[in-house]
Amino acid sequence: MDIRSYVLGKAMDAKEGARAIARVSSEGKNNALRQMAEALRRKRRELQRANKKDIEFAKGKGLSGALIDRLTLTDKRIEEMAKGLEEIAALPDPVGEVTKMWKRPNGMMVGRMRVPIGVIGIIYESRPNVTADATALCLKAGNAVILRGGSEAINSNRAIVRVLRDVARANGIHEGVVTFIDIPEREAIMEMLKLEGLIDLIIPRGGEGLIRTVTENSRIPVLKHYKGVCHIFVDRDADLRMAEDVCFNAKVQRPGTCNAMETMLVDEKIARRFLPGMIRRFRSAGVELKGCARTRRIDRHVAPAKEEDYYNEYLDKILNIKIVKGIDEAIAHIERYGSAHTDSIITKDYSKAMRFLKEVDSSSVFVNVSTRLSDGFQYGLGAEMGISTDKIHARGPMGLEELTCTKFIVIGNGQLRE
Amino acid sequence: MDIRSYVLGKAMDAKEGARAIARVSSEGKNNALRQMAEALRRKRRELQRANKKDIEFAKGKGLSGALIDRLTLTDKRIEEMAKGLEEIAALPDPVGEVTKMWKRPNGMMVGRMRVPIGVIGIIYESRPNVTADATALCLKAGNAVILRGGSEAINSNRAIVRVLRDVARANGIHEGVVTFIDIPEREAIMEMLKLEGLIDLIIPRGGEGLIRTVTENSRIPVLKHYKGVCHIFVDRDADLRMAEDVCFNAKVQRPGTCNAMETMLVDEKIARRFLPGMIRRFRSAGVELKGCARTRRIDRHVAPAKEEDYYNEYLDKILNIKIVKGIDEAIAHIERYGSAHTDSIITKDYSKAMRFLKEVDSSSVFVNVSTRLSDGFQYGLGAEMGISTDKIHARGPMGLEELTCTKFIVIGNGQLRE
Repeated sequence: MDIRSYVLGKAMDAKEGARAIARVSSEGKNNALRQMAEALRRKRRELQRANKKDIEFAKGKGLSGALIDRLTLTDKRIEEMAKGLEEIAALPDPVGEVTKMWKRPNGMMVGRMRVPIGVIGIIYESRPNVTADATALCLKAGNAVILRGGSEAINSNRAIVRVLRDVARANGIHEGVVTFIDIPEREAIMEMLKLEGLIDLIIPRGGEGLIRTVTENSRIPVLKHYKGVCHIFVDRDADLRMAEDVCFNAKVQRPGTCNAMETMLVDEKIARRFLPGMIRRFRSAGVELKGCARTRRIDRHVAPAKEEDYYNEYLDKILNIKIVKGIDEAIAHIERYGSAHTDSIITKDYSKAMRFLKEVDSSSVFVNVSTRLSDGFQYGLGAEMGISTDKIHARGPMGLEELTCTKFIVIGNGQLRE
Repeated sequence: MDIRSYVLGKAMDAKEGARAIARVSSEGKNNALRQMAEALRRKRRELQRANKKDIEFAKGKGLSGALIDRLTLTDKRIEEMAKGLEEIAALPDPVGEVTKMWKRPNGMMVGRMRVPIGVIGIIYESRPNVTADATALCLKAGNAVILRGGSEAINSNRAIVRVLRDVARANGIHEGVVTFIDIPEREAIMEMLKLEGLIDLIIPRGGEGLIRTVTENSRIPVLKHYKGVCHIFVDRDADLRMAEDVCFNAKVQRPGTCNAMETMLVDEKIARRFLPGMIRRFRSAGVELKGCARTRRIDRHVAPAKEEDYYNEYLDKILNIKIVKGIDEAIAHIERYGSAHTDSIITKDYSKAMRFLKEVDSSSVFVNVSTRLSDGFQYGLGAEMGISTDKIHARGPMGLEELTCTKFIVIGNGQLRE
């Protein structure tokens, strides 16, 4: 098969879908989403039959248990997918919202109106639930989606897509609105990434390797984050009890997530008071600690941290501890080793809190809050399409608004240029 | 000289400049901008001496009078550049603005704070005033700029940049904030476009050819518009007197601009009433008319419009006229032949006005207003860095806000993830 023309055909289909969905009313989109949820529930057995093929294949290939777990469409996961679609149906429609409007001296009104982006390409790995989640978010924001999931989930994804497209068609919406790249070759990704003009935006979701490949090869704008090397800086003016609770939560509550803390920076002025209790608490939770030389003078059982450890996203119960001279060194450390994901300061000092908020150049900057709260749902966005650490279009968790842009509208009564 | 390492060195310099300018206070930036304005006035002779070299070279090469005119730094133009800088100094600083803030059920406050983008690359053609204008906008928004002007203006640009950098240095701001690619080779552009990670955004300003070259070769996000094929649709329910004034203004007031009307779409129901007077008025202003077959049945002196004429940005006193069946055909025509720049409907009918606003997928959509009003200053943005017809980050005229992005800030008192 000619992969280039296959992908091109798919993208043209998606473009037709984008034209169609852009004009569907909020009610029409919400009805379709709710029917998609119902259809996923109804076709549960069919989805699980397809899913079984993927699982057997994965087992045959000797893939890890964790991967097979991620791949598996249990009853609970299918119900969660369906509920997810219903929740997105219940959110306000961003399209058509006029975010601002003002009057000019000549009497004309100038405003910004939210409009869909067009065709959004999602490139992801093994979780088949992304197929439904990402589709629902794109559709709700008036966009078509072109999906390229991991080859190990291709049967599951195909089955989910069939359900979603059937509902679209039954609602009179062009099926191209949910377009699926149904071939496993990696070359298909490369072909997708060349189709600027047909695909308007690419969102890769998965490990750093996938994301780097996408970013380095794309001629289409990409929104992404590579990894989450999140910091908490415990300032000398912190409430140390709060600091302990927040740092513990940020490391231990769910260490495998991108918003978990990877390095704790401690002001030298309070290190001797703060660290012993904190270290005891981390140890009691089985956290492996690596520290700078000064930390190890306070607790010699802490392993030495190497330079490269500070760049690491452990995604595990491992933590770097570094003692710093104060806020300047903390900010410099974050700038150097951080990933612009989420960084927090614990302090009671107003001016340092404000400085940290202003000067730390990350996509989410916190005062006295656990980094684990960096998330579209926690922020109240109602949904999350991933997190961007870029500086164009979106920075931080992306919700429905980030899947739109705003055009200008001008309403007048005969205004001319003088 | 090794062009690759030359450009890389420049970009690293600009990155240093970006770090510096991001932390300069509003007052610091405004003082620098005002001093730059004064310095341009003071160094007028020096600038004109450098400019003379460019002009002589251009004459020697037999370049057109229009180009030489655009190149020339008259006293008036230098004064305009200086005033431009002062006007930008007087605008509110977008950086640090919290555009929205809300409270979550757990008591934490979530907000969006405007931050600079970083390093912005400007690639432009012959007008040396862009050097000062673009620099001022980037600096005000807390960004460093890396400038690549047309080779025919290299002496003028170098002289302007020297003045601006001297002021930056005198104000303790790292000179990299105004970085100039001081070699004429086109290869330098190609090298710039590869430096993602160092340059955050590219804005090309110039003819369609330049912009296509930049877009096709850039691995950095690009904001641009290719051309302005603007339409006015005169609906059957239009105030025909208003329609005539608006269409006349949109075509004739300054035909060489990207927001001038190139095609007038006329509802068949009012064509016979509207066109004869309108055509007379255009002719009296020396506008050359091309029309569809039905238009030519109304006035046989109108030349026949060819299919490809409808894609044309004339930038001149030439206009296409096409009679359409109604709003559906008008919208379909705009979608097919338009450039997503600016399109206007003239109507008294509320529901058609609303439909046009919603369904026309252009970056500026107007009701009862001349397309010539599509402009950052006219909209009240206070400045304009160009127009984007893209759908990522910015759509329509770009002001200072579009040279920033927003990060999330979260302020709490010990909130944890449950």
